[in-house]
Amino acid sequence: MTGTHTDLYEIRMAASYLRRGMTAPATFSLFARDLPADRGFLIAAGLADCLSFLEDLHFDESELDYLRTTTDLRDEDFDALARLRFTGDVMAVPEGRVVLAEEPLLEITAPLPEAQLVETAMLNSLTFATAVATKAARCRLAAADARLIDFGARRTQGRDAAFIAARASAIAGFTATSHVAAARRYGLTAAGTMAHSYVEAFPSENAAFLAFAQDFPQNTVFLVDTYDTVAGIRAAIDVARHYGIPGDKLGVRLDSGDLRALAQVARTMLDHAGFPQAQIVASGGLDEYALARLTALKAPIDVYGVGTRMGVSADAPSLDTAYKLVEYAGRPVMKLSPGKLTTPGAKQVYRGDVDLLALRTESPREGYEQLLLPAMRAGKRIGPPDTLTAAKKRCGRDLARLPASASRLRDPRPQRVVRSGALRQLTEKLARDTGTTDRDRRNRALP
Amino acid sequence: MTGTHTDLYEIRMAASYLRRGMTAPATFSLFARDLPADRGFLIAAGLADCLSFLEDLHFDESELDYLRTTTDLRDEDFDALARLRFTGDVMAVPEGRVVLAEEPLLEITAPLPEAQLVETAMLNSLTFATAVATKAARCRLAAADARLIDFGARRTQGRDAAFIAARASAIAGFTATSHVAAARRYGLTAAGTMAHSYVEAFPSENAAFLAFAQDFPQNTVFLVDTYDTVAGIRAAIDVARHYGIPGDKLGVRLDSGDLRALAQVARTMLDHAGFPQAQIVASGGLDEYALARLTALKAPIDVYGVGTRMGVSADAPSLDTAYKLVEYAGRPVMKLSPGKLTTPGAKQVYRGDVDLLALRTESPREGYEQLLLPAMRAGKRIGPPDTLTAAKKRCGRDLARLPASASRLRDPRPQRVVRSGALRQLTEKLARDTGTTDRDRRNRALP
Repeated sequence: MTGTHTDLYEIRMAASYLRRGMTAPATFSLFARDLPADRGFLIAAGLADCLSFLEDLHFDESELDYLRTTTDLRDEDFDALARLRFTGDVMAVPEGRVVLAEEPLLEITAPLPEAQLVETAMLNSLTFATAVATKAARCRLAAADARLIDFGARRTQGRDAAFIAARASAIAGFTATSHVAAARRYGLTAAGTMAHSYVEAFPSENAAFLAFAQDFPQNTVFLVDTYDTVAGIRAAIDVARHYGIPGDKLGVRLDSGDLRALAQVARTMLDHAGFPQAQIVASGGLDEYALARLTALKAPIDVYGVGTRMGVSADAPSLDTAYKLVEYAGRPVMKLSPGKLTTPGAKQVYRGDVDLLALRTESPREGYEQLLLPAMRAGKRIGPPDTLTAAKKRCGRDLARLPASASRLRDPRPQRVVRSGALRQLTEKLARDTGTTDRDRRNRALP
Repeated sequence: MTGTHTDLYEIRMAASYLRRGMTAPATFSLFARDLPADRGFLIAAGLADCLSFLEDLHFDESELDYLRTTTDLRDEDFDALARLRFTGDVMAVPEGRVVLAEEPLLEITAPLPEAQLVETAMLNSLTFATAVATKAARCRLAAADARLIDFGARRTQGRDAAFIAARASAIAGFTATSHVAAARRYGLTAAGTMAHSYVEAFPSENAAFLAFAQDFPQNTVFLVDTYDTVAGIRAAIDVARHYGIPGDKLGVRLDSGDLRALAQVARTMLDHAGFPQAQIVASGGLDEYALARLTALKAPIDVYGVGTRMGVSADAPSLDTAYKLVEYAGRPVMKLSPGKLTTPGAKQVYRGDVDLLALRTESPREGYEQLLLPAMRAGKRIGPPDTLTAAKKRCGRDLARLPASASRLRDPRPQRVVRSGALRQLTEKLARDTGTTDRDRRNRALP
């Protein structure tokens, strides 16, 4: 990723700052203004992409040529942009952790032009990854002991999104993905059965199952609903017997109809046929609500393939994230736009019985855990690289700690976030100093 | 894009077909099963990406190594996969055209393993591009004469999606995008103003506006809502006068609050100040519904920046698309899964007063336009490359032809799609032949 993977205004602003030598340290804070409906928490994800982008930030010659011929920038700007790299510091919430509204996912402190330029990329990387990790975590919570497989690749919003969803769902506790390249990139398990087209390409369902069993005796999951599901289960059993496929290699996949009823039928038929270990896989338009329903009904389903609705985070396809300047050259700043008021200053989040949103300059709170940890210093990553396994552990631990009121799927109540006294005082003082209070909004910049 | 950008099951099925010499021509049809709520039409998009993928399809050595060490494929499979390229034919609806549920966006006829392997990529490329082009077209319909700019990049579902949304919205009639790299890639106009952080980084709003006007006298759009919007507009006017910025280079951007009321205030102030040509730009959480409301209220807004809700197609983030085998080795096939029944055979869509879904083998209908056109033959693209300009023209023309009942935003009534007699007969015959009717579902494959 290079420098033009951004909004034009970032480049114009960066150029304007550079012309004036406005290169003092700026801190930007990236957070979700609020949680979408039916979200009691978010799962932080996307940091790895942010750090890669920051490490690599530069404008190559062809980009500068493009800007030269299409924008109103000047020669001096191109020299400065050509030299620009990311030299700043990053504090961030590690991937997999539960975060709440207004809690920074990431704070960047860097010379103002650099910190400004990366806004679009930081928002892009964290917003969807966090949304989809959250969606996947809700699926994980809803599915009790069943295993979950990411089936999202075919309908995610672009190819990147398929990778992001595979990775985010792994953090949230999915055990495999259907997406081969994503499995390869992230060291995940790739999983897959057969499509209806496979069954249809053969003269009969039986013929298709025979071929499949012959070809894949180690992992034989038959898709049984192409024509008639009960008949399909019977055919699967017949073929498994014919080839002597052991029960622990055998499975049937249900992709339509009343999944609970069909799963019960399949379980009974497989058990009676001497395949108590055979797995029942279900898929088809599933999300956390469907999983919770099937779980509550005790549907005997061992594995769920969860696709589109998780992969696009269907009921909350974006988050109301913001990347806001909170301090420049040692001066805390804030925005007063109606409905979009921000709080000033670099922050830390302390997690105890409640979450405490404090200024980073305040002394650490004893007995509280700090959510934001150093991720980059002077443009270089700090410490050993994070792993997906570690992120997954953090996620599992944080989810387990959530009270039921926050983790329930419908109408959850997020945990409280309290602002420290110092943060409240600074916010009030600054609102006053900017000449603006709730009662009397004026802009001190005017004569 | 290489071969492993797919679901694992495609590779397993392809290997199984290859082992058995099941390489006869297969036709797969890609279509939306139905339209999302509040959609009276879809705008076809994403074909360019499909064709690029097909042209480039191959497995490189490192992918084959990965499959060798992680799957149950055999040596013979790797030799076959290494040789595999896409050698088939593609019929497709050109980008920008209105399409309806069940109408194929694309049909692929190729040796079965090839046609199977590309399923995931075809669905991925067409589903989101079509969803977001449709969303953008609805914005275009809602905004009357105002210009529209894509502001989506910061919160799209990944980086690909930002490119796809920029391109799709251009097809739908947006005039610019904020995304520099997307503008460059697709030859679009990049546009951008300033962020709140720019205003906050200066000691005062006035100082920020002075700097900005000095730096960008040719394109000076002031963001006026950082502190107090009316005061911000006044500051913009003062600075424009101070620097003698001509009205046609001047603008103000409103990003919060009551956009209609503030736009009226801004229009009055700018007119009185002698800037009747100055543009008013509005942004902030907009979608087609907000645009329609502002249009109905005659808000004097010249340009809308439309971001996240368009960029993720917020109310319909995916389409219920399917890629279904409809013919193999000259034998039409269909699927009977409950709720997911498909119709057999390669198709053509004829558009006249209504749309007629027919078998491709039927004689052309006089006076009807054919929607599916040849796009690739024997793995090579046919004819001169399509252009965004042409796609945009098609979209504008098709949108203009839609009756109000189909184009209205809420509760639209899609145009009718009629099945030809021959298609209906084949569907019924095949359902019978497969041993299955609505009353009596059995699977003829079983003993």
